[in-house]
Amino acid sequence: MSETDTVLIGKKPVMNYVLACLTLLQNGSKSITLKARGKAISKAVDTAQILVKRFATDVKIKNISIDTEQVKDSETGATSNVSSIYIELGK
Amino acid sequence: MSETDTVLIGKKPVMNYVLACLTLLQNGSKSITLKARGKAISKAVDTAQILVKRFATDVKIKNISIDTEQVKDSETGATSNVSSIYIELGK
Repeated sequence: MSETDTVLIGKKPVMNYVLACLTLLQNGSKSITLKARGKAISKAVDTAQILVKRFATDVKIKNISIDTEQVKDSETGATSNVSSIYIELGK
Repeated sequence: MSETDTVLIGKKPVMNYVLACLTLLQNGSKSITLKARGKAISKAVDTAQILVKRFATDVKIKNISIDTEQVKDSETGATSNVSSIYIELGK
């Protein structure tokens, strides 16, 4: 496994992402970055909190950063700014 | 003005909160903490990004932390866990 794994948070239920992280950890991952954009940001925070407080209490939140990404609409071609979050988890 | 002001992010449009922060800054506030729970978390990130990148480029994101709060339903009396975010902004 690589040193840092990335889990992209999208439209699936929160527990899917918690499970994805737990699987990575069990396969020896030392560091996981949760990445989310727009409305999925709150789901990324939920995922981190559920993971750290309930399922993997040895894992800690190492760093949180936020950024803005330019997203191009595939139909209209217009660009819009979307906020994003990166939550770094590690043992 | 106090040293740290807190802006609670709720259901209003993002620009309301950006304006609230700008008003605080113009009144001499040196440090603002944005606080949001649940689905408003992504709006807090939006507020911070719009403020820092467009309207108050001298303001920087100092720290971001996340937590879990227990919220009691006023009707059923049941408690549920809600994620929260704190974004500290300062000059």
